[in-house]
Amino acid sequence: MKSNKTAIKPTRAENYPEWYQQIIKAADLAEVSPVRGCMIIKPWGYAIWENIQRVLDEKFKATGHKNLYFPLMIPLSFMQKEAEHIEGFAKECAVVTHSRLAVNEEGKLTPANPLEEAYIIRPTSETLIGDAFSRWIQSYRDLPVLVNQWANIVRWEMRTRMFLRTTEFLWQEGHTAHATSEEAMQETHAMLDVYAQFAEEYLAMPVIKGEKTASERFPGADNTYCIEAMMQDKKALQAGTSHFLGQHFSKSFNIKYLSAAGKEEFVSTTSWGVSTRLIGGLIMTHSDDNGLVLPPKIAPSHVVILPIIHDDADRESILTYCDKLASELRELRYHGRQLGVEIDTRDLPGGEKAWSWVKKGIPIRLEIGKREMAAQQVSMSRRDKDYKDRQALSHNEIVKIIDAELDDIEAHLFLRAQTFQQENTQTITNFDDFCRFFEGDGGFALTYWNGDAAIEAEMKQKLGVTIRCLPLDKADMRGKCIFSGQANARMVIFAKAY
Amino acid sequence: MKSNKTAIKPTRAENYPEWYQQIIKAADLAEVSPVRGCMIIKPWGYAIWENIQRVLDEKFKATGHKNLYFPLMIPLSFMQKEAEHIEGFAKECAVVTHSRLAVNEEGKLTPANPLEEAYIIRPTSETLIGDAFSRWIQSYRDLPVLVNQWANIVRWEMRTRMFLRTTEFLWQEGHTAHATSEEAMQETHAMLDVYAQFAEEYLAMPVIKGEKTASERFPGADNTYCIEAMMQDKKALQAGTSHFLGQHFSKSFNIKYLSAAGKEEFVSTTSWGVSTRLIGGLIMTHSDDNGLVLPPKIAPSHVVILPIIHDDADRESILTYCDKLASELRELRYHGRQLGVEIDTRDLPGGEKAWSWVKKGIPIRLEIGKREMAAQQVSMSRRDKDYKDRQALSHNEIVKIIDAELDDIEAHLFLRAQTFQQENTQTITNFDDFCRFFEGDGGFALTYWNGDAAIEAEMKQKLGVTIRCLPLDKADMRGKCIFSGQANARMVIFAKAY
Repeated sequence: MKSNKTAIKPTRAENYPEWYQQIIKAADLAEVSPVRGCMIIKPWGYAIWENIQRVLDEKFKATGHKNLYFPLMIPLSFMQKEAEHIEGFAKECAVVTHSRLAVNEEGKLTPANPLEEAYIIRPTSETLIGDAFSRWIQSYRDLPVLVNQWANIVRWEMRTRMFLRTTEFLWQEGHTAHATSEEAMQETHAMLDVYAQFAEEYLAMPVIKGEKTASERFPGADNTYCIEAMMQDKKALQAGTSHFLGQHFSKSFNIKYLSAAGKEEFVSTTSWGVSTRLIGGLIMTHSDDNGLVLPPKIAPSHVVILPIIHDDADRESILTYCDKLASELRELRYHGRQLGVEIDTRDLPGGEKAWSWVKKGIPIRLEIGKREMAAQQVSMSRRDKDYKDRQALSHNEIVKIIDAELDDIEAHLFLRAQTFQQENTQTITNFDDFCRFFEGDGGFALTYWNGDAAIEAEMKQKLGVTIRCLPLDKADMRGKCIFSGQANARMVIFAKAY
Repeated sequence: MKSNKTAIKPTRAENYPEWYQQIIKAADLAEVSPVRGCMIIKPWGYAIWENIQRVLDEKFKATGHKNLYFPLMIPLSFMQKEAEHIEGFAKECAVVTHSRLAVNEEGKLTPANPLEEAYIIRPTSETLIGDAFSRWIQSYRDLPVLVNQWANIVRWEMRTRMFLRTTEFLWQEGHTAHATSEEAMQETHAMLDVYAQFAEEYLAMPVIKGEKTASERFPGADNTYCIEAMMQDKKALQAGTSHFLGQHFSKSFNIKYLSAAGKEEFVSTTSWGVSTRLIGGLIMTHSDDNGLVLPPKIAPSHVVILPIIHDDADRESILTYCDKLASELRELRYHGRQLGVEIDTRDLPGGEKAWSWVKKGIPIRLEIGKREMAAQQVSMSRRDKDYKDRQALSHNEIVKIIDAELDDIEAHLFLRAQTFQQENTQTITNFDDFCRFFEGDGGFALTYWNGDAAIEAEMKQKLGVTIRCLPLDKADMRGKCIFSGQANARMVIFAKAY
């Protein structure tokens, strides 16, 4: 492939949304299903989700949370109990109304046995869990309750895009109950920190921790906190949220406890979640015009060995050499799991074979032909470097340095994404610059805002931008609102968003 | 507790079905939810499922299968494509007919936005997966396809019982496509073997591998194979199934490939699954009148340390001693995971505390009071032995022998269950004995049957028994049918079943 050609058409610069779809296709991560707005997550994509699950699950357990499982279907009467919750979720949901199918005169299947009370497929589980908490919690001795579930969720989205917004998606939802609001707020922040660390250390995706404005809050929350990442088109992606629910749900569901002092009190609750959307964020943070780029800590496999066989007489000896190297590499562990090593023995031209792995984003490719075998060497290429950039290493060397190389790739991807984010974040002090910024290339605009929701709505309508968050590391900063001129305004980030 | 009292009321002998419900409650495994026929799986129960998942997932991957994920909702038109499949699953399913809720005049939420085509919540995924296979498979080079998904399933069951039969349940469903029927049949048996080994080696649950008769076959299968276990009430539990689907689904969904010889052929497919029902089987195989009994390899935790504090002055030193022991034990691994160690520091009387862990089925209890601490000892009790049976061990000893003790418990539980199964299995050679057997205590009746479905139906109606399977290890045996007198009949197992 010549340097002016790319494996993915269109390129990011040509058509970013279409490039995104083509990356998913080229890497074989997922495909559109015959079910409206739902995707089929294919093995290479699902393995990324398994790695996300494994790491986060360990972190949740290490912080005292236990997994459990609540039903998929929620009775309508439960949704009815929390007014804001209805408002937020009733708009878009799958409603189960029948419990049987019958065959009609035309021989077609049709719904039969109407239910007395309809159910919705969970868009989130606060209501069912609130009801359970009210039964489980009696005394201060029962607190805190710290639980989590890995589950599928359905929200009837109008416009869907694979991984970023699908009718059904996979997620985890943590739910906790505490004796005091201070403790619940501490939990809300602790889990936000878990998400931020995970995003940066594993997905190599720099994020900004912040608080949402009222208009972007979770329906039924006192405060919603988020991690926001910048994609390569400079738009923001909300990658995880942690909600301080205060006593909204404990009052709707009557979750009370007897305090040590013998007084009846309402608990304070939290909930927090990340979803398969993280995979969309991962794709858009690192991938390039040649395909997917995967941070090694979360990649399904770390290394592919590509035997290069020009002469059938060499086949067996080259494959034996490759198998031996694979076995040695598979003895190694990388960040808590066995090093993943593929050997591609397909009968394809070498270039085509190598490019298929470039597109799949595997961090390291090792080519082994007759020459390499004779010299007890491998030819190493890294996915974060140019396709033609190869390094000859001895067999012994590669086994020794592979984890350092992977760490280096991970660090490089993070640094590259962080630099991109910083270069496209601008502190803006007047409204004209603000408009120019978003009429131009855009990015993250750090500005002062007086807290007026009408301004938010106006900017959304006028420039298509929203307040992504009030960054926590700038929570103390105060200045003049660029929209109203009002003093003592807080610092926020405006951006276009997914 | 006196020896004639039991922690669980009623006992197995008094009322087996109610005993089962009380075990689940006492061990805090799950509870009935406000959603009809669905349960909430609580942390102690869910951790068992996580262990089942972890071990089976490794076995699936080691045999070349990859995980993926298909949508929850299946368009009605897909169900329509496989006639037997409709017959089997359309009777009992959750039908999604609307995509929104509206508030009616009375302020109540009601379904809105009727869908053009209704969906059912997956009762199994052969149809969606068959459709995908028809797109993924073009050439013999694409075969075999070996995939699996961990998912939730909804079947609108009329009579539900926690873990054994619930409207929603969790399972895995493996789906494979092969070039030849021989290869598909090989896969069907290989996965049945995986299930059987897992049940026996991890759940300590002896099983019989067999083939189902036509009347008990999966809708759309050529052959269904199963593992059947005997519960303590001598009834059979189908604990896992593996289906040879032949070309049923490849013909319904047009899954064809171009062979190496350039000929267009239909693939042969298989599917196989186990579910949270395994937990029901686990409970009914080992538990006793004092609560749950857990095989160590699948227990959420292996050991509980119970500090016995009579004098507040000793509290700190005893707790420090317990913590030290816990840390040492947690350094150990047991069958692929960290040894799970709990310390129960609750302010409860020692007996009550110990009994709560007996009921939860934890394999080993270690009591540590002032006397034990002074002697650098622990007092060990095993869940598979009498409550009062204690063994004094030195601190160093317990760390050394703990995994051997756990293995011994696992082996003991298996042996006990196997003996029970053998004692309650009888070879029956005439119809009078057959009737007497099932009018009495019952169990597994090994008999010859001529293959006539009318006899099956009659026995079900008359004695409430069904053919559980044609045991594979007796596939070659032939004899006189005890119902018809016909010669050359095959050997089957009749039993009452869950």
